[in-house]
Amino acid sequence: MTPTSHTGRAMRAPLALSAALLVAASICIPSTAFAAGDDLSANGGAQRNDGDKTALLRDSIVDGPAKNVILLIGDGMGDSEITIARNYEYGAAGELPGIDALPLTGQYTTYSLYRDGENKGKPDAVPDSAATGSAWATGTKTFDNAISVDIDGNPQDTLIEIAKANGLKTGNVSTSEIQDATPAVQAAHVDARSCYGPDSPSCGDDALAAGGLGSISEQLIDTRADVTLGGGSTSFGQTAKAGQWNGQTLFAQAEDRGYQLVDDGAALAAVATADQSQPVLGLFTPGNFPTRFAPSVATVGGADLPAVTCEPNPDRLATDLSLASLTTKAIDLLDTGDKGFFLQVEGASIDKQDHAANACGQIGETIDLDEAVQAALAFAEADGETLVIVTADHAHTSQIVDSTPPTSLSTALTTADGTTMKVSYGTAALGGSQQHTGSQLRIAGYGPGAAQVVGLTDQTDNFFTMANALTLERDTDVFSAGATATLTPTTVQPGGDLVLDAAGFGGDRQIDAVVQGEAEGLGSHDLIDGATRYEFSGPAEEGAHVVTLTGRQSGKVVEVPFTVAADAPATPSPSPTPPPAAPAPDGGAGGDSGSAGSGASVLGSTGAVVAPVLTVGALLLAAGAYLFARQRRRQHTA
Amino acid sequence: MTPTSHTGRAMRAPLALSAALLVAASICIPSTAFAAGDDLSANGGAQRNDGDKTALLRDSIVDGPAKNVILLIGDGMGDSEITIARNYEYGAAGELPGIDALPLTGQYTTYSLYRDGENKGKPDAVPDSAATGSAWATGTKTFDNAISVDIDGNPQDTLIEIAKANGLKTGNVSTSEIQDATPAVQAAHVDARSCYGPDSPSCGDDALAAGGLGSISEQLIDTRADVTLGGGSTSFGQTAKAGQWNGQTLFAQAEDRGYQLVDDGAALAAVATADQSQPVLGLFTPGNFPTRFAPSVATVGGADLPAVTCEPNPDRLATDLSLASLTTKAIDLLDTGDKGFFLQVEGASIDKQDHAANACGQIGETIDLDEAVQAALAFAEADGETLVIVTADHAHTSQIVDSTPPTSLSTALTTADGTTMKVSYGTAALGGSQQHTGSQLRIAGYGPGAAQVVGLTDQTDNFFTMANALTLERDTDVFSAGATATLTPTTVQPGGDLVLDAAGFGGDRQIDAVVQGEAEGLGSHDLIDGATRYEFSGPAEEGAHVVTLTGRQSGKVVEVPFTVAADAPATPSPSPTPPPAAPAPDGGAGGDSGSAGSGASVLGSTGAVVAPVLTVGALLLAAGAYLFARQRRRQHTA
Repeated sequence: MTPTSHTGRAMRAPLALSAALLVAASICIPSTAFAAGDDLSANGGAQRNDGDKTALLRDSIVDGPAKNVILLIGDGMGDSEITIARNYEYGAAGELPGIDALPLTGQYTTYSLYRDGENKGKPDAVPDSAATGSAWATGTKTFDNAISVDIDGNPQDTLIEIAKANGLKTGNVSTSEIQDATPAVQAAHVDARSCYGPDSPSCGDDALAAGGLGSISEQLIDTRADVTLGGGSTSFGQTAKAGQWNGQTLFAQAEDRGYQLVDDGAALAAVATADQSQPVLGLFTPGNFPTRFAPSVATVGGADLPAVTCEPNPDRLATDLSLASLTTKAIDLLDTGDKGFFLQVEGASIDKQDHAANACGQIGETIDLDEAVQAALAFAEADGETLVIVTADHAHTSQIVDSTPPTSLSTALTTADGTTMKVSYGTAALGGSQQHTGSQLRIAGYGPGAAQVVGLTDQTDNFFTMANALTLERDTDVFSAGATATLTPTTVQPGGDLVLDAAGFGGDRQIDAVVQGEAEGLGSHDLIDGATRYEFSGPAEEGAHVVTLTGRQSGKVVEVPFTVAADAPATPSPSPTPPPAAPAPDGGAGGDSGSAGSGASVLGSTGAVVAPVLTVGALLLAAGAYLFARQRRRQHTA
Repeated sequence: MTPTSHTGRAMRAPLALSAALLVAASICIPSTAFAAGDDLSANGGAQRNDGDKTALLRDSIVDGPAKNVILLIGDGMGDSEITIARNYEYGAAGELPGIDALPLTGQYTTYSLYRDGENKGKPDAVPDSAATGSAWATGTKTFDNAISVDIDGNPQDTLIEIAKANGLKTGNVSTSEIQDATPAVQAAHVDARSCYGPDSPSCGDDALAAGGLGSISEQLIDTRADVTLGGGSTSFGQTAKAGQWNGQTLFAQAEDRGYQLVDDGAALAAVATADQSQPVLGLFTPGNFPTRFAPSVATVGGADLPAVTCEPNPDRLATDLSLASLTTKAIDLLDTGDKGFFLQVEGASIDKQDHAANACGQIGETIDLDEAVQAALAFAEADGETLVIVTADHAHTSQIVDSTPPTSLSTALTTADGTTMKVSYGTAALGGSQQHTGSQLRIAGYGPGAAQVVGLTDQTDNFFTMANALTLERDTDVFSAGATATLTPTTVQPGGDLVLDAAGFGGDRQIDAVVQGEAEGLGSHDLIDGATRYEFSGPAEEGAHVVTLTGRQSGKVVEVPFTVAADAPATPSPSPTPPPAAPAPDGGAGGDSGSAGSGASVLGSTGAVVAPVLTVGALLLAAGAYLFARQRRRQHTA
């Protein structure tokens, strides 16, 4: 097909991306692309299959495990929304080069569950994005409004949390506020999806001040994905109301906890690495990203007005912050380790613009997502070990109709075919929010493990599809089962300096340390690969003491005894030696055995003495963690 | 799940059918059925996959060829309609035992083409059932209203026609008037779908009287599928306005042409065989079948009324005429030959009740179709050589919504879960016809060749999927290329009896014979396996004559010279010997060579003399054809 001259449609994917996709498409798609001059009216002229694709389909079925998983979500992107975008941008016989390219396809159910009353636990036919996201993020069906908690409010481990505990790198990208339901389900556990930040009144028991896990933004800092990119900086300007960072903005907290904060394309481009020592938090807009296209207006009878062509939105972010660009950047930053990565990418505003009965808006966002899918497929194709899943969270209102509906909102668009497409929005009145709908949805996959999406599945199956493809151990507590702690020295003068190295807490993201009998604890630390270091002053009181470490997620407790004695040797300066390396995600020790520092007390969780382990490789790995632990101490003692 | 006590939902598939499906399902569905007591709210509690189905999916991909193809169409059965029926009848976590059981799934596009004006040949985003049916029946995209003609009105060969020419048995089953678009696309070629019978004013140039192929009903008789079952008897009570059966009702014509006519369950049950000698035409209602469920009423604000449970429709036909029963009967009648069969089955009134904003109506029809799918899968499972395709023709209006829409029609239903499902109809006003919508649709397959449905395809691909699975030669003219004719005797007294045996017209369904110079031809005959016999009196004029045979579909002409001479031997009584056996569908002769009758003139199409061929097996095969040809002569000479 020749490029169209529509102003809007001229905003295509960068050439390099398109070229990459062509490579991917040649393998992913067993289909005949519609080309200019094809006669659709000829016998066979509209075929998409290119001969017998049985062998191609067989080749598409690749056994797991996958090293990496990229999940791309079109929020509200039902089959109708896909078709609308395809018709508009590529013509009805055309192809969305990303979304349509995945070789394995199925449908899944998206219902949520009622939380309360006589229907508690029964299906709710029309879900919201919180329940649906929670379903694939955790494998647990839950109620509308729930962010990765079950119908009783119990937190459910998310794929990002589980993948991280398994030693994978993780990423979370969206065009929405990063606190919005779809990205939030990977990063937080709250009862009310609107609990965005410390100032959100909806947080209730989830607020830090109420003893909860904190707002979505605060939990997102805790979750510490390696890469988090999206909108929603507003909530990060709010100040914590309780806890260790009480009174500080979330931005200050994140920076203090080692995050690389970026807020524009240039800063993002400058980021060379993202890992647990220096995770990247890129928030590029106060709220949601501006859409690709300027809005079209649907009104009652609107489809009888002259058909419109979508116009570019002058407020759209630069292309280096397009969803495709962010996806590519996230992949670049995550594709570094032997362990692979899990990345979720959301095209958020298909849904939002469908709610607004804005056909151009939803179309542009679908195209944006499609370009992100192209980027993901191009990587997966070259990589060969990546499972790509493309689906949506729930169906939506927009429908392609033949004639202008009498009472529903509608609008007419000129498609790439040069014909008129009428789009109807019939579930809310003008100015109201068009509704989600309850239809089953398309899910499509490419790569190792993708066979799981074929046929009829449920949205919760997608969690297991991805977790199993990555062979994730879902019981993350086991990664903290062998946790150890080493205290140096074991006998210290009153008030003398102590160094506590925790390791093997791979199932935890944070740890708390308390010296028994002291009113104030030693504070929470972020664990990096299950390890952290505390540097603190011993008690003034002579005698036997115990420092207790508790993994915040696993509940794993490690106690380390020490003695305060006036005749103890003078404490040496805090060791410049990094703390022990993190254990491997299988829960075992992280390297070969080595000798403990003189006088160190090392207790494994079973009470057995475990030699601290340091190898050259582990030294290098742990260097960042050490620096971070120093930083943490400064904060704690400030 | 325990059976529900809903009156409506109690009308389940007969036990035998369900049991058969359980067998099928155990192989078709790599999924976990939702069972009573399952906790949907538990982690993994809502999964449908039962572990890794990669191997099962691989096993589901079976190379063609298929011996048989069963295509089941839910008219207007988009993903939303499927979900509505599932939610209602089996609960949101439940499974439609037929529709949901097919292992290979994809989406396809359904757009039609504009016929006229500047948009001629360009996509029309919202198709009707005529264009969509024509797409899979012929592989040619066409305009709304077209019944298997292209955008220029040229007839396109249909799967039933092609399968028949290839020697397969064929069937066409629907719950609608058999003239309705979906069944019609396999049996007729008209520009206007409403050209049901000789009385239809819309036939225009297609009317016999206008020199056309005739109305859909008249063409259906010509097409002569082995089994045709549905509604629509009204049109067959009309009388032909031109042609060979001018002045006769179509029922009388069909009977005269050898059809077994049945109009109730008992008569259908008594039919033991259906073949080209005695095809079955069962028309059980004047118009469309009554629906399974009594109507529900959608109104503006209707979903705020108390939720309803669907009630049985007292007018529904007995279960021996349910779509599942008709499907089973059709399969029984078709599954007899070495060559296999093609069967199309349509659940027609999902669409019709969606048009009427009748949720109970469309649900019941979806369940009816699902039971037919169960029957087809049970056969295919046992048979092992059958491709089953389940899909729809176009998407439709009904949507599951969360809250009552302000202006659209809506209704609330109590689902099998005991919860309320709100269904909205927003594309027409009360009393109007809700519209088709333009979304891509689910297509699902099972058996040899089913891999073709996976991923994104077009509706026209489905034609090639089925035709290629059956390894059909689509150029049916080749089956008449070797046509021959034998005249006995070659020299006859003036007015003496002649016997003309035509054979090898496998690419034709009818043939015309004319003695050169005579004003009136010898009439049209139905060809049975490419063969027929004419018995006629020779001209009074002495000298050289020629009788010309023309295959009506292929245009193949065979000329046979003969001589009228007063001194010719007296004509023997017409031979009781059957005519030559039909040639094999590969166009070759039908058996071993044999000696021609004394004095017979045999001319192949190339002009070469071909020995007429008769073997014992061919004799048996041809017996029915002979009887039929005798009958035809009676009619013609009446």
